[in-house]
Amino acid sequence: MNVIDNYKEGFITYLNKKIKVKEPVNLYEPIHYILQLGGKRLRPVLTLVTCELFNGKAKEAYDAALAIEVFHNFTLIHDDIMDSAPIRRGKVTVHEKWDVNTGILSGDAMMIMAYQCFESYEAVTFKKLMLLFNKTSLEVCEGQQLDMDFETRNNVTIPEYVKMITYKTSVLVAAAMKMGAIIAKVEEREAEAIYNFGLNLGIAFQLQDDYLDTFGDAAVFGKKIGGDISENKKTFLYLKALEVCEESDKQKLIDFYTINKNGNSKVEEVTELFERTQLKEITIQEIELYTSKAFKILETLSVSEEKKQLLKNFGVSLMKRTI
Amino acid sequence: MNVIDNYKEGFITYLNKKIKVKEPVNLYEPIHYILQLGGKRLRPVLTLVTCELFNGKAKEAYDAALAIEVFHNFTLIHDDIMDSAPIRRGKVTVHEKWDVNTGILSGDAMMIMAYQCFESYEAVTFKKLMLLFNKTSLEVCEGQQLDMDFETRNNVTIPEYVKMITYKTSVLVAAAMKMGAIIAKVEEREAEAIYNFGLNLGIAFQLQDDYLDTFGDAAVFGKKIGGDISENKKTFLYLKALEVCEESDKQKLIDFYTINKNGNSKVEEVTELFERTQLKEITIQEIELYTSKAFKILETLSVSEEKKQLLKNFGVSLMKRTI
Repeated sequence: MNVIDNYKEGFITYLNKKIKVKEPVNLYEPIHYILQLGGKRLRPVLTLVTCELFNGKAKEAYDAALAIEVFHNFTLIHDDIMDSAPIRRGKVTVHEKWDVNTGILSGDAMMIMAYQCFESYEAVTFKKLMLLFNKTSLEVCEGQQLDMDFETRNNVTIPEYVKMITYKTSVLVAAAMKMGAIIAKVEEREAEAIYNFGLNLGIAFQLQDDYLDTFGDAAVFGKKIGGDISENKKTFLYLKALEVCEESDKQKLIDFYTINKNGNSKVEEVTELFERTQLKEITIQEIELYTSKAFKILETLSVSEEKKQLLKNFGVSLMKRTI
Repeated sequence: MNVIDNYKEGFITYLNKKIKVKEPVNLYEPIHYILQLGGKRLRPVLTLVTCELFNGKAKEAYDAALAIEVFHNFTLIHDDIMDSAPIRRGKVTVHEKWDVNTGILSGDAMMIMAYQCFESYEAVTFKKLMLLFNKTSLEVCEGQQLDMDFETRNNVTIPEYVKMITYKTSVLVAAAMKMGAIIAKVEEREAEAIYNFGLNLGIAFQLQDDYLDTFGDAAVFGKKIGGDISENKKTFLYLKALEVCEESDKQKLIDFYTINKNGNSKVEEVTELFERTQLKEITIQEIELYTSKAFKILETLSVSEEKKQLLKNFGVSLMKRTI
C-alpha cells in the first residue's frame, strides 16, 4: 500500500497549496473546512494511479484529481443538508457549523471551483474532460434524486437499486479513473475499459457498504452498525430479502420498515431475519460478481502485468474492509 | 423594439425545444417549471444581439444564450430558498411548490445543464466560453455572499455596494454579451469593450431597480413600491442617504432600519426623508453616469452606426421603465 499512500500524500500537498480561504471569507471558509476533514481521497488517488498506469505523469493529473475531490465534497455538503445530517467524518457538518444558506451557497461555489480546476488543460483535452465531467455530475444528481424517490416508494427493484448506487457513487469513481486515462492520452477503447473497471468496482464497494452496515465490525467499519436498519433504508439487503424470504418474514420486514417501530430489538431482529434468509451469503456473492467483472476488464488492458497487479491489489485492499 | 422581440421569440422556441421533462421527473419537472415562468429573457437576447452586432449568426449563439438563461434561473431557485421567498414572477417558488431539498438538487442539476449547453462549440471556442462562464458564475456566488454579509454589517460603503451589485447582477449581463462576441470571433479588444458596456449597463439597471422600488409606479414596475424599505434593505438610496443627510436624519434612518419598526408610516416617512435629502436626483445622476459610461464604450466599437443605434435603443428602452 505504500505506492498508494505516496499518491495520497502528494495529492493532499497539492490540495493544500491550491485551496486557500479568500474573500468573501464566509463563502470560502466552509469550502476549506470540508476539504480539510480528511477522508480516504479514494477518487483523486484513482485519477493519479490510472494516469500512471497508462504511462502518463501523475503531476499532469493533479488538477483533474482535485476537480473530482472538490466536486465530491460539494455533493457531501448538499447531501448533508438534504439528509439533515449533523456529523460528517466525525466533525459537525457545514450547515450545522454555519447554516443551511451557507451550505447551499458554498456548495454552489465549490461546484464551479471544480470546473475551474480543468482550466489548465489545453483545449482538446479540456473539452474531453468537461464532456465526461458534465455527464457524470448530472448522473450523480440523478442518483441522489432516485435515492430520495425510493424513500417513498414500496416497489423498488434490485436493478433500480443498482442503477441508483451506480449513479450516486460509481460513475464518479469510474470518471475519476477515465480522466487519468484521458490525460495519459490513451485510446478511447482503453479509456472506456478503465471506466467500466471503476464502475463495477464502485458498485461492489457500495454493496459492501450495505453489507458492512449490518454485518460489519464497528471498529473496522468506522460507523455504528445497524444504522441503515434503524433508519429504514432500502438497501440491497432489504430489497433482496423481500425477494427471497417467506411471506411471513416479508410482512414482518415491511412492518419493521413502515411502522416506525424503533425499539431496541429492531436492529437485532432484522439482522437475524437477514441472516436466516442467507442475505450474508447472497450479498457476498453479489459483491464478488461485480469485483470479478471489474478484474476481468482489467485483463483486457494492454498495460504491464505489474501495473495491473497494482490496481488489482488496490481493489482487493478496498474490499478487505469486509469479511 | 420589434427586432428585440424577434430575438426573444426565437430564443423561447429554442428553449422549449431543448428543455424537456425526463426521468427522474422529480428532478427535471422543477427545472422545466421555472424556465417556463417567463421573464424578460434579457440576458439570452443580449447574447444573440451581440453576436449579430459583430456579424455572427444568432443561431450559432443559441446554445450560449440558453446556458446563460439556465444558469440565471438556477440562481433564482437557490436565492429564493436563501431568502425564503414564496413568490417568483407571480407564481409560487420551486421550494414552496415542491420542497427545499428539491430546490437544492434541481438547482444543482440546472447548473450542470448550463455547462452542458456549451458542448456544441468546437474545442477552442468552447474553452474560451468556459473560462468566462466559470469566472462569471463564481463572481455571482461571491455577489450573493456579499449581499448576505451586508445584512448584518453597519458600515457598508457605496463602492462595496457597487461591487456587490456588479457581481450579483452585472457580470452575468456582461458575460452574456461577451459570449455573443466570442462566438462571432471578434478581436479580444472588441469583446472586452462589449463586456464593459454590459457591465456598466447592468450597474445602471440595478441602481434603477433600487430607485424604482421607492420612487417608481407600481403599475409599470410590476412590484409593490416600498418593499426594500419595509425589508430594511441596504440599497444605494439608504447607503447614500447615510452619507449625505444631516445627523438627526441619519439617526432616524438607522433607527428605522434596526429597530424593526414596521408601522404603516415607515415607508412613507423614509421615502419622505429620501426625497428631502435629494436622493431622487442623486440616484438619477448615478444611473446616468453608468449609462453614459456604457454608451461611450459603445462608441469605440468598430461596427456600423446602425448597429450601435440598435444596442443604444435597447439600452435606452431598458432605462425607460424609470422616470
